[in-house]
Amino acid sequence: MSDLLDPLFGDPEVASAFTAEAQLRAMLEFEVALARALAEVGVIPSAAIEPIARASQASPDPAAIAAGAARAGNLAIPLVEDLTARVAALDPDAARYVHWGATSQDVLDTALVLQLRTAVPIIAGRLAAAAEAAAGLARRHADTVLPGRTWLQHATPVTFGLKAAGWFDASSRVRSRLESASSAALVLQFGGAAGTLAALGERGLEVETALGRCLGLPVPRFPWHAHRDRLADLGCALGVVAGELGKIGRDLALMAQTEVAEIAEAAPGRSSTMPQKRNPLGAVVALAASYRAPGLVATLLAAMPEEHERGIGGWQAEWAALPELVQVAAGAARAMAETLASLVVFPERMRVNLESSGGLIYAEAVATALAAAVGKGRAHALVAAACRQVGPGRHLREVVQQDPEIASRLSAEQLDALFRPESYLGSTKALIDRALSR
Amino acid sequence: MSDLLDPLFGDPEVASAFTAEAQLRAMLEFEVALARALAEVGVIPSAAIEPIARASQASPDPAAIAAGAARAGNLAIPLVEDLTARVAALDPDAARYVHWGATSQDVLDTALVLQLRTAVPIIAGRLAAAAEAAAGLARRHADTVLPGRTWLQHATPVTFGLKAAGWFDASSRVRSRLESASSAALVLQFGGAAGTLAALGERGLEVETALGRCLGLPVPRFPWHAHRDRLADLGCALGVVAGELGKIGRDLALMAQTEVAEIAEAAPGRSSTMPQKRNPLGAVVALAASYRAPGLVATLLAAMPEEHERGIGGWQAEWAALPELVQVAAGAARAMAETLASLVVFPERMRVNLESSGGLIYAEAVATALAAAVGKGRAHALVAAACRQVGPGRHLREVVQQDPEIASRLSAEQLDALFRPESYLGSTKALIDRALSR
Amino acid sequence: MSDLLDPLFGDPEVASAFTAEAQLRAMLEFEVALARALAEVGVIPSAAIEPIARASQASPDPAAIAAGAARAGNLAIPLVEDLTARVAALDPDAARYVHWGATSQDVLDTALVLQLRTAVPIIAGRLAAAAEAAAGLARRHADTVLPGRTWLQHATPVTFGLKAAGWFDASSRVRSRLESASSAALVLQFGGAAGTLAALGERGLEVETALGRCLGLPVPRFPWHAHRDRLADLGCALGVVAGELGKIGRDLALMAQTEVAEIAEAAPGRSSTMPQKRNPLGAVVALAASYRAPGLVATLLAAMPEEHERGIGGWQAEWAALPELVQVAAGAARAMAETLASLVVFPERMRVNLESSGGLIYAEAVATALAAAVGKGRAHALVAAACRQVGPGRHLREVVQQDPEIASRLSAEQLDALFRPESYLGSTKALIDRALSR
Amino acid sequence: MSDLLDPLFGDPEVASAFTAEAQLRAMLEFEVALARALAEVGVIPSAAIEPIARASQASPDPAAIAAGAARAGNLAIPLVEDLTARVAALDPDAARYVHWGATSQDVLDTALVLQLRTAVPIIAGRLAAAAEAAAGLARRHADTVLPGRTWLQHATPVTFGLKAAGWFDASSRVRSRLESASSAALVLQFGGAAGTLAALGERGLEVETALGRCLGLPVPRFPWHAHRDRLADLGCALGVVAGELGKIGRDLALMAQTEVAEIAEAAPGRSSTMPQKRNPLGAVVALAASYRAPGLVATLLAAMPEEHERGIGGWQAEWAALPELVQVAAGAARAMAETLASLVVFPERMRVNLESSGGLIYAEAVATALAAAVGKGRAHALVAAACRQVGPGRHLREVVQQDPEIASRLSAEQLDALFRPESYLGSTKALIDRALSR
Repeated sequence: MSDLLDPLFGDPEVASAFTAEAQLRAMLEFEVALARALAEVGVIPSAAIEPIARASQASPDPAAIAAGAARAGNLAIPLVEDLTARVAALDPDAARYVHWGATSQDVLDTALVLQLRTAVPIIAGRLAAAAEAAAGLARRHADTVLPGRTWLQHATPVTFGLKAAGWFDASSRVRSRLESASSAALVLQFGGAAGTLAALGERGLEVETALGRCLGLPVPRFPWHAHRDRLADLGCALGVVAGELGKIGRDLALMAQTEVAEIAEAAPGRSSTMPQKRNPLGAVVALAASYRAPGLVATLLAAMPEEHERGIGGWQAEWAALPELVQVAAGAARAMAETLASLVVFPERMRVNLESSGGLIYAEAVATALAAAVGKGRAHALVAAACRQVGPGRHLREVVQQDPEIASRLSAEQLDALFRPESYLGSTKALIDRALSR
Repeated sequence: MSDLLDPLFGDPEVASAFTAEAQLRAMLEFEVALARALAEVGVIPSAAIEPIARASQASPDPAAIAAGAARAGNLAIPLVEDLTARVAALDPDAARYVHWGATSQDVLDTALVLQLRTAVPIIAGRLAAAAEAAAGLARRHADTVLPGRTWLQHATPVTFGLKAAGWFDASSRVRSRLESASSAALVLQFGGAAGTLAALGERGLEVETALGRCLGLPVPRFPWHAHRDRLADLGCALGVVAGELGKIGRDLALMAQTEVAEIAEAAPGRSSTMPQKRNPLGAVVALAASYRAPGLVATLLAAMPEEHERGIGGWQAEWAALPELVQVAAGAARAMAETLASLVVFPERMRVNLESSGGLIYAEAVATALAAAVGKGRAHALVAAACRQVGPGRHLREVVQQDPEIASRLSAEQLDALFRPESYLGSTKALIDRALSR
Repeated sequence: MSDLLDPLFGDPEVASAFTAEAQLRAMLEFEVALARALAEVGVIPSAAIEPIARASQASPDPAAIAAGAARAGNLAIPLVEDLTARVAALDPDAARYVHWGATSQDVLDTALVLQLRTAVPIIAGRLAAAAEAAAGLARRHADTVLPGRTWLQHATPVTFGLKAAGWFDASSRVRSRLESASSAALVLQFGGAAGTLAALGERGLEVETALGRCLGLPVPRFPWHAHRDRLADLGCALGVVAGELGKIGRDLALMAQTEVAEIAEAAPGRSSTMPQKRNPLGAVVALAASYRAPGLVATLLAAMPEEHERGIGGWQAEWAALPELVQVAAGAARAMAETLASLVVFPERMRVNLESSGGLIYAEAVATALAAAVGKGRAHALVAAACRQVGPGRHLREVVQQDPEIASRLSAEQLDALFRPESYLGSTKALIDRALSR
Repeated sequence: MSDLLDPLFGDPEVASAFTAEAQLRAMLEFEVALARALAEVGVIPSAAIEPIARASQASPDPAAIAAGAARAGNLAIPLVEDLTARVAALDPDAARYVHWGATSQDVLDTALVLQLRTAVPIIAGRLAAAAEAAAGLARRHADTVLPGRTWLQHATPVTFGLKAAGWFDASSRVRSRLESASSAALVLQFGGAAGTLAALGERGLEVETALGRCLGLPVPRFPWHAHRDRLADLGCALGVVAGELGKIGRDLALMAQTEVAEIAEAAPGRSSTMPQKRNPLGAVVALAASYRAPGLVATLLAAMPEEHERGIGGWQAEWAALPELVQVAAGAARAMAETLASLVVFPERMRVNLESSGGLIYAEAVATALAAAVGKGRAHALVAAACRQVGPGRHLREVVQQDPEIASRLSAEQLDALFRPESYLGSTKALIDRALSR
């Protein structure tokens, strides 16, 4: 399939952990570690290690492996055959011990874990960078007022720092969650044909321990070939990462709208025909990820009910869905890290927007002040009636001042204060500080 | 991303319509056709056609286009720049007219349509081959009895021909549906920057007509850049194809179980460690597709609510999801066409299975015969009680004969007949004939 | 589960086709029609019809049926038992023939079809109303200019009539598609225990024909209990409906933004605390549907690979997902029909927005005019450079006039024309007319 | 929508936390706690507490609230109005302080958290019961041999205890994960109109602290109204629960197949027409959940990119999807807890199945033994050739004994041992012990 869009939507470092070559290399790493572990425990002669290790340096022909997989049903079978032949050319005796005691799924699952072990920290690093950039925006713009918006309508004033603090808080949290799902998921898979390690007789768990040590992977309490909850959980964490990055991207794209113009990306996209265009490219990469991830997560979850000791269809669907999900989340994290770090912010325009609604954004402030005197319900009704009179050339300040019931309760000085954004920010500063203190 | 698994899960012919080169070629085909259409209508000089057509013969460097897309936001922008430079090298004047009046989305959407126009008939052909193979099985095995199974429990006897006729009927139907969704979806997209064709002044619709003719594509009533229902509908049809092929694959995998052993694949998969293994590889390819397709369809549907005249994130998610869905459905269709055409059937084992439950599979037959005398409810209760006495060494035939109430209503001859599968097949033959008559 | 939100997100007429009572009623309708069909063909005595029909008038206790279903595994089993008991109270002999020859799935599937036969035309009617309202907007606002927006950035001028014509075109198309999927899907299911109609001996197809006639349902070529493609396809059509309505809802919500303010809903939602709020409620109902439908469609597709003659899990998942999808699509259609029919449009604000970008929206118009003289690439570059000089107090008109190369090619009169939206609408009117002519 | 199937697919205790009444009650609990917190901090008079608390005892009319929500856009608005009126009837002054400082989302989100706080421990309890039942099976059947199956084909011998230990291990893990996602997610939401708590002036965080204490909910670092990652993560955990329970259900349904018959459910489902039927009802409930959950999780993830300070469509989609997901997971947990606790196991049949393949299940054992002498590759080839000669009346034991190369390497005694399942169980016992030690 065309990978022309990988540079746009992916992450080059993560991509390099999921190339065909990287996948085959991870599988060979398993086979070499297996030989070492077997020799260490005394199941196979130590002399077998070196030829197996040496033969594993060679790069198998991806097309041949791919073609072999199409006949055999997975990549491990042709790879093990290829490796065995290479070892045999070096040392026929050592060739007898290639892949000893393991099954295809042991190689495939553990190699995937090795690839993920490379990829997840890169994504976590991008998320940390995005969060750090958001924290910087939160600090710099703690007092930069702009309209808070609910249902895409002006609500009450907020500050851009508050928005950015929310991005920081959530992206820090999804990073932690990704790291803990990753810690839990990235464990050795080693069970042999049906999960009993029978081909290793009584020595299975010893080999398992040694293999885990060789690969630097924890040994789980039970082989997980037929129980995919750890990988599904990691996939979910990636899905939540993509969703949260999509939230940031959505905010940015909305703020970059021509009519809103509160921010711009430093490296916008272009148009093939419209010379003025400065498209919010980073935001769109994150948003595209947030559209793609849910379906991929759903595939991983749907694939969980595997049949007995190895699935028919579900496991195989995972082969495609999980690496793709990794790439999707990685691309979004890269894009948001870059975009937030170089974001262009227009504080003046934020304030202009805040004042653009004829004072309606201060309606809650007025109602709240009034409520102390007339109660919440009555205050809401009075101010709602006043709001309906606001229009071109008629500001809410003016309407409320002319309303006898309101004016009898709120003095002109009080009203002056109520129509200043700074006086209706509540706990904004405290919330930013609390968020950034994590 | 690694494409080592494409030969296993994909279709080589369809894959070749979705390579990077094929995608760029389809885009260049659009640009050449656009030049011809513009010249035909008189918007640009005819002399511009030949240099543009000639420059389009060259193959742009995929890596450069991909890198350009990462900066600009789509593949069309770097491709048009590359093409313009090539044309300029041949004829500077002609270079002025490259991509005239169009926008990136016109190229991208229409190129996708051109790729789909190649791919869909291949998939439809695979489906026709699968259906034909199923029809052959239905004819050959119209009388081959085996257990009908509901909730994975024996129900009443059916024939293998009936099962195969169901596969034929449904796979024919999903093929028709795919073809009609494809006819509806594969239309020209041509709208210019915001869907008004403004850059062509008054000549937009004339150019559109000419362009449709040049490309052999119908002209829709309205440009569809912001309304993705046709593509979503085509994606749905591919999803339904994958689902139905998954159903056939599921039936095959269940019938191939060691304990069932009613069929085997002619080209089974192997194991890296178990010498006896003959895995149902074709079935698993189809099943894997049926796990992957739903999430991809969900992505296409979720992406539909695009923003105004061009989407932010949704459209871009489609770029990945639709080609992948095409490949997934194509691979399943290829696998099922091959598998059904060479299926190994074991009629003796089917009959053995039918008789393996101590006659319980005939319970409904007995109850139905009894119902004429004692009513449906009473018959059901009597036979259910009899069934509970069936066990090793105790056949339902024997139990019912010893039940005074049943024996008083059904003679030994009647019972003999009731315990023959052939006498309880109802409309099986007629249904097969009717299914195959389509 | 709480149904407090049904009035907000659903459609009351469609909801009434999917109440517990309506479902049981549809199932009883099947049982009565079955008795009639059986009697007509002579399988059961005609005298059995009347007691069965009469007993079916009574309303079974939903809680008792629900509790029975929890033990038996489906609703048909307790319902048939309940009905049999009621018939027995009227006429013990007639009770012998209740549910004769059918199986639970025949009742459940056909009853669902009967419910869908009621619901789908209501949804189609809502879609027709929404389309009609969009057509009215398209006609009334064919000349009402506003900014076309791509990537949420101003692109080139369009008219509100063009946007509305797009809504009309697409909503008409998804309605047609829903109707054709419905025609194809709404057919009788009648197969008996395992799809052979064995309990009816040789008379199965005769009874099927009579039953189809009694219920007014077409008889399919083959029973579809194990092949769910028709229902999946109908589900997909509902998903596409929700997606398209979500697109309209998205456009509306974006246009209703405080900073954009081009439209408002006639019956907006409120806030519990902000007196000024007028939330775009109809838009949000449609958008919420577009978020929910993809997952429900994915469930239907994932459920397709059913096991043998009746599924384990997949079929049962469909029981929940399809009625919910119907409600989701219905609510969106109702909301959009109401919202579009009463939409408040602010043409002045549309024009203000169009002019709000310092002329940048005319950049393509200028570049296109210039391209005739200097070629597309050079024109694009020149105008792009000019755009970068636009800012507060500096209009693109002014910049380009001061650019020697541009000014030498385009006279002041030409520039005057280029900065009028009406002169850069291209085929807008023709496209609206063509869309509305369907 | 019909809830006739709730008893079959749901959990009655969890359902009672999600009725209309329970939802309104949770919302009222928030309003009372808010009044207490406000009074404690001194924002409102203490005298207001009692009337608000007393008025909250009354049950609002669900239909009226639902109708109000359809006009206003959420349930909080009509509920607060209803409550305010009730309080006013008791004490007009107190009515002035109802819902003071909060916004609808504060009530709705926190009420949902309160409902989840009730529901999640019930689900966790069901999971613990299912795990305990699995542990019991693992202990009792640690030595009960049966075929291990990969790709639905016999692989090597395992024990039923090993399978059950895998169920125990995974269901324990998904329970832990659910509990930790729940701990993280079930926190107070309190932000006011746009997340600044502006209506409370400087007192926002004090009120927040008091409110959290009143409700027994942790206070998060930052209000989460616009960042849904915690709830999405909890939804994911529920999805993984459903997937794992579906895996157990799939194993059970496959083992219950007529041809396999290794287990039966103690309370099977029935058929409306087939007297012999004993359907695996619990398994199907779990499987149905595993089909429904992925789409619901996808909806939650897709809904994450909310617009600014409150979403349009995404948040509202969550209202339906999350409670439904809770019910789906709860029903599966209930069904598996009941089913595993009362599972009927047929050890004799397991052994019969093991021996049913003419010794092919021992192929790896033979190949492994042979590999020590001739190497892994040669051994695999020799045994694979032998396997191809196995058939009716021809056991692998016989074939290998007659193969000169094999027989020269393995004595009759060795072969005798190799064809006993007990001698090829590898680390089975140790793995069971290790799994159960958690």
